[in-house]
Amino acid sequence: MSTPLTVSEDELVLLTDLYQLTMTQAYWKEAMAERATFSLFFRRLPPTRRFMLACGQQHAAALIPRLRFGEAELAQLAATGLFEAAFLDWLGEWRFSGEIRTLPEGTPVFADEPLLEVDAPIAEAQLLESLLMNLVQLETLLASKAVRLVIAARGRPVVDFGLRRMHGIDAAVRGVRAYRSAGLEGTSNVLGGLRHDLPLRGTMAHSYILAHDAEAEAFAAFARHYPNTTLLVDTHDTLAGVDQVIALLAAEPELSVAAIRLDSGDLGALARGARRRLDAAGHGDVKIIAGSGLDEWQIADLVAEGAPIDGFGVGTQLGVSADAPVIDLSYKLVAYAGRPRVKHSPGKINLPGPKQVYRRRDAEGRPIGDTLARHDETGIEGEPLLVPLVRDGRIDDALMTLADSARERVTAALAALPGPLRRLEPRAGPEDDYPVTLSPGLARLRRKVG
Amino acid sequence: MSTPLTVSEDELVLLTDLYQLTMTQAYWKEAMAERATFSLFFRRLPPTRRFMLACGQQHAAALIPRLRFGEAELAQLAATGLFEAAFLDWLGEWRFSGEIRTLPEGTPVFADEPLLEVDAPIAEAQLLESLLMNLVQLETLLASKAVRLVIAARGRPVVDFGLRRMHGIDAAVRGVRAYRSAGLEGTSNVLGGLRHDLPLRGTMAHSYILAHDAEAEAFAAFARHYPNTTLLVDTHDTLAGVDQVIALLAAEPELSVAAIRLDSGDLGALARGARRRLDAAGHGDVKIIAGSGLDEWQIADLVAEGAPIDGFGVGTQLGVSADAPVIDLSYKLVAYAGRPRVKHSPGKINLPGPKQVYRRRDAEGRPIGDTLARHDETGIEGEPLLVPLVRDGRIDDALMTLADSARERVTAALAALPGPLRRLEPRAGPEDDYPVTLSPGLARLRRKVG
Repeated sequence: MSTPLTVSEDELVLLTDLYQLTMTQAYWKEAMAERATFSLFFRRLPPTRRFMLACGQQHAAALIPRLRFGEAELAQLAATGLFEAAFLDWLGEWRFSGEIRTLPEGTPVFADEPLLEVDAPIAEAQLLESLLMNLVQLETLLASKAVRLVIAARGRPVVDFGLRRMHGIDAAVRGVRAYRSAGLEGTSNVLGGLRHDLPLRGTMAHSYILAHDAEAEAFAAFARHYPNTTLLVDTHDTLAGVDQVIALLAAEPELSVAAIRLDSGDLGALARGARRRLDAAGHGDVKIIAGSGLDEWQIADLVAEGAPIDGFGVGTQLGVSADAPVIDLSYKLVAYAGRPRVKHSPGKINLPGPKQVYRRRDAEGRPIGDTLARHDETGIEGEPLLVPLVRDGRIDDALMTLADSARERVTAALAALPGPLRRLEPRAGPEDDYPVTLSPGLARLRRKVG
Repeated sequence: MSTPLTVSEDELVLLTDLYQLTMTQAYWKEAMAERATFSLFFRRLPPTRRFMLACGQQHAAALIPRLRFGEAELAQLAATGLFEAAFLDWLGEWRFSGEIRTLPEGTPVFADEPLLEVDAPIAEAQLLESLLMNLVQLETLLASKAVRLVIAARGRPVVDFGLRRMHGIDAAVRGVRAYRSAGLEGTSNVLGGLRHDLPLRGTMAHSYILAHDAEAEAFAAFARHYPNTTLLVDTHDTLAGVDQVIALLAAEPELSVAAIRLDSGDLGALARGARRRLDAAGHGDVKIIAGSGLDEWQIADLVAEGAPIDGFGVGTQLGVSADAPVIDLSYKLVAYAGRPRVKHSPGKINLPGPKQVYRRRDAEGRPIGDTLARHDETGIEGEPLLVPLVRDGRIDDALMTLADSARERVTAALAALPGPLRRLEPRAGPEDDYPVTLSPGLARLRRKVG
């Protein structure tokens, strides 16, 4: 009676918009099999952001060579009555044969810069649109929010507690991959952390305290079960809860408590009160963790006021990227049959042709500006960022390992991030914009085709 | 090299916060096996909303009796070093043995009203927290947003085009279930629509137009492939695009076009211009569809100004519930071992004890107020809304069929929705609040325990 809750990898070929399949059949019927290039980019940064962290594009691209239309999926398509038997046979035989160029996971990215380009016979490239957009947006959104929390915490560990607030199963699991790339220290999410190799962290819930007849009894029981645990002190009265922890450690000196967790009230004031009490009792080694419901602004304020908080747990605001829950991603045809193409609707201008992004750096390795160029243009200064991850339908395993080093790359990128990009405040004007300019070749092409 | 993108149903037992498992082990070690009641509710409506549509709670509850800790999951837990072998054996044998009471899918719900209550030995009820919250929030969020679009469109069909903007795979697929319940007419999402029985709809993308040498050529090819199709007219100039459609129908009268789609610009003015041109050419039967990027406010404005738009496609704003991307859901212990429990932290008050929601209606069946009562209280006026869907760990199949009729129930509920709840504007003050009062028994209990 009840429909399934999960989606298998076999079914992902159907996670598409109907028009991708009808257009693909149209290309097939019209024998339009020339190569096309589609470019995945966003037109504008969210108003509250100075950069996005491109994430998920290599994770998604690595799936593409595995995609198959199996019997079950073809039967479901046949039942719609929209597709010819010969076209469904073609779909059943289809394997991706093209090239996918991507930014490395965890690359800071700006408006108009491709996160990914697909170069393939047009039907194949068209077919991937909806799935790639869905997959890439999620990880990019969550990594881009997470990195702001990391910046705000100025070296204090930030841990994800947001599973319950995220949009469903896939968001919660792949989100942890994005968080890992962005530099979070841990997650409460068991499946996400185990799969994506981020350390598991956990404390206790109010329900555990309330199920016991007294807070002190709950603290004692939990600390006996779990050496070096974290105790949640705000169920009744936060500072009285801290006193219970101190009393417990006095009564049972063989117990160890690694940290207390503050979860409500004026976190700065409570942290100072808790720190004074703990220090006075000789527990300078017991750390103070604060969360959840925090955003990057509250973390920055707590850090600025010198609140003695050793780590932050974040949930709601991170888990849905609350200030920017969506990116204005586009996947646009930029070339077909060797000719650049572009759409002209008022207010929207797309840059024609396959592209490359070149990033220039100063002597310290700090990015100072990007040039958006034609893919085949030479002599552009800077490091070319788009790398071919899939060629002739096959993954380049050597390049795929890049995806695994996203965390290290983001750490290095953050250290080298120019000051204006590290600020949490929205861009105030063009002086806050990271400079992205068009190469001479792309500027010429745009004038010609645009 | 690349980690999987999908999650199997077997893995869902690990989609939890670490502390649920450590607390469960603590309850097990302490032999705390008395029954507990946990209540899933939200403390506040989002500021922009007058009600939420409870959705997903029966879908999620139906999963619970199927949950098992399999060998692979137990091995992963063992590897964390946090769990005793005897506890893992207990987990391996564990089957949910309790009761889950839920609101029927698609019930309008207000602050403090349980969407779901779990009544089970405390370890079992604790174990479900994170998963239930994650699963229920998603469908409730999306159904609650979708119903606003349906209200705004005043009878014109609303179709989901948002797959690409949603937060990952699960959001996109289960989202369609929520949209169906909320009354959307169709979806572009193939997997979501096929699985959750919402008709598939689709048009064409700009890329198809651009891949052809001329717009007219693309229109002709697509219309020949697909009788009664919808043509996208805004690639170059919307009204010139409409003229191309008219010219095509004049040149090839055997072709049929069901609709044109406007996708950019001043939709009201363009719809009027398109309608005039189509009518003058004798194509009064060709409909006009507008999208995407629309929210309920823009739809309401277009409807109010009398724009000749026959249907709306919605994407971004719907797919992430942009004005309220998160609900402040809580899953709180309200009773243990037969005694009501409650948390006292400042600023947060929970109502103790298991509950029932009674909805009173006027002679026309219009809801006029709810009473939140103790679960065991008698003599309360109105219809009791929470129904036991899982009993002694087994699903009540007769009640499960309720979930399948959510769409019909929401349609009826919308028709009967009191005027103030149908308004899109945020609540201005208490006069806009739907009345939810406490029963005498619950008020007494709150004074005693609170």
